[in-house]
Amino acid sequence: MMDREALNAFLDRAFPQVAGQIRVEDVGESLTARLIVAPQHLRPGGTVSGPSIFALADVAIYLAILSRIGEVALAVTTNASIDFMRKPDAGRDLLADCRILKLGKVLAVGECLIRSEGGVDPVARCSMTYSIPPKRP
Amino acid sequence: MMDREALNAFLDRAFPQVAGQIRVEDVGESLTARLIVAPQHLRPGGTVSGPSIFALADVAIYLAILSRIGEVALAVTTNASIDFMRKPDAGRDLLADCRILKLGKVLAVGECLIRSEGGVDPVARCSMTYSIPPKRP
Amino acid sequence: MMDREALNAFLDRAFPQVAGQIRVEDVGESLTARLIVAPQHLRPGGTVSGPSIFALADVAIYLAILSRIGEVALAVTTNASIDFMRKPDAGRDLLADCRILKLGKVLAVGECLIRSEGGVDPVARCSMTYSIPPKRP
Amino acid sequence: MMDREALNAFLDRAFPQVAGQIRVEDVGESLTARLIVAPQHLRPGGTVSGPSIFALADVAIYLAILSRIGEVALAVTTNASIDFMRKPDAGRDLLADCRILKLGKVLAVGECLIRSEGGVDPVARCSMTYSIPPKRP
Repeated sequence: MMDREALNAFLDRAFPQVAGQIRVEDVGESLTARLIVAPQHLRPGGTVSGPSIFALADVAIYLAILSRIGEVALAVTTNASIDFMRKPDAGRDLLADCRILKLGKVLAVGECLIRSEGGVDPVARCSMTYSIPPKRP
Repeated sequence: MMDREALNAFLDRAFPQVAGQIRVEDVGESLTARLIVAPQHLRPGGTVSGPSIFALADVAIYLAILSRIGEVALAVTTNASIDFMRKPDAGRDLLADCRILKLGKVLAVGECLIRSEGGVDPVARCSMTYSIPPKRP
Repeated sequence: MMDREALNAFLDRAFPQVAGQIRVEDVGESLTARLIVAPQHLRPGGTVSGPSIFALADVAIYLAILSRIGEVALAVTTNASIDFMRKPDAGRDLLADCRILKLGKVLAVGECLIRSEGGVDPVARCSMTYSIPPKRP
Repeated sequence: MMDREALNAFLDRAFPQVAGQIRVEDVGESLTARLIVAPQHLRPGGTVSGPSIFALADVAIYLAILSRIGEVALAVTTNASIDFMRKPDAGRDLLADCRILKLGKVLAVGECLIRSEGGVDPVARCSMTYSIPPKRP
């Protein structure tokens, strides 16, 4: 229902705080989003911080849901589970590959694998649940 | 390092309580295991119980790790996260498709999707972490 | 709304498969449930199995919810997160101390700490989310 | 081993990006940390963002571990599980009350409840696992 341009436009409008940092790269059956890594995302040692990885996963899976059901700006994250598995490569953007596992009337569940651009092994794995507000009649 | 026969033989020997219930179907880059659903796994209404789904995921991801590193009977589960997404089909076995995301010296992380045999949509998603005991010199 | 006797009676009626194994010990602001450990719960080495610990947590938090909202036999577990932290003491029952953190119209969230009877350090920590079906008019 | 002053000094030194935003309020058996909520933490509608809540939980539990074992700047988060349960109160700081559940040689597990200052009901629940690097001889 929403393509890459529509999702990025929504991101600029609804999440101004991350709009310059996260961009949708591709959307179809799955969705790939990029975190444009900048100094504000780094921890000492050059690692991308946990909260920055969380933000990427949260926004990416949320947008993957919107790509299927359209703008539901009030959907809220109710649960997140993350495994941090490897240190990201210094100086590279992160890419999140997401897929939606369930799209119910009340709950949606999605997951993503996050890797450094050009890398193969996943940096992190994340699954998230969103509560979808009832449609107004 | 361990093929399907070796894994099923290990299961019979090391986990006699689930040996007749869970079988490895396929193993390669990923591993597929089957829960042979029987009355003991059911909740009222014919649904496979949460603990039975948990047991399938735990054994299947554990065996996927063993298929790569050989018998490490002392590896222990340290964390599990599960999303239960749909009711399993009544009267059908469950299949868990697992992959290993990290195989470190200390921790291994794997995940699986569980579906009813013949079904497409996932019944549950599970990720698990295992602590690997240090090798004795 | 449901006291210890009512919860145990519900357990016998609605979950015949675990009724003889799990009992409510105390209920008030929090709820304590016991797993009467028997050979069927053990893994090699005398440890209580992960699925048995999962079953205790799931039933205990579910009953803690029922103690507040009454019989809602159709509430279903949608997410579970468990940390397994220590080996249970051999030959001792497990006790789960639960509390409800959220009791919404659509979702309920609870958590529990599980310890061996007579022990102090927790064996496992578990949080669970349940979807509550809409009330029929 | 580290008191409030030592933990806040460590935070300033090792995590300059969050130092002005998160402060340890109390430390003893448990630890309480405060997120000084500012515009950068907010989502449209005035809600504190998920990544900001994640950052508070991550730093707070990490500091609770350091308060027990001293400076281990290389400990890394390996797993996080969060339930977002209520909207934080607009215009109020968030407080995270943490406790350590396991402090092993290899892994530490802690959890926290997060609430709005002056509020009673929890905004979020979080459990985290950290991998502790081996001591150098």
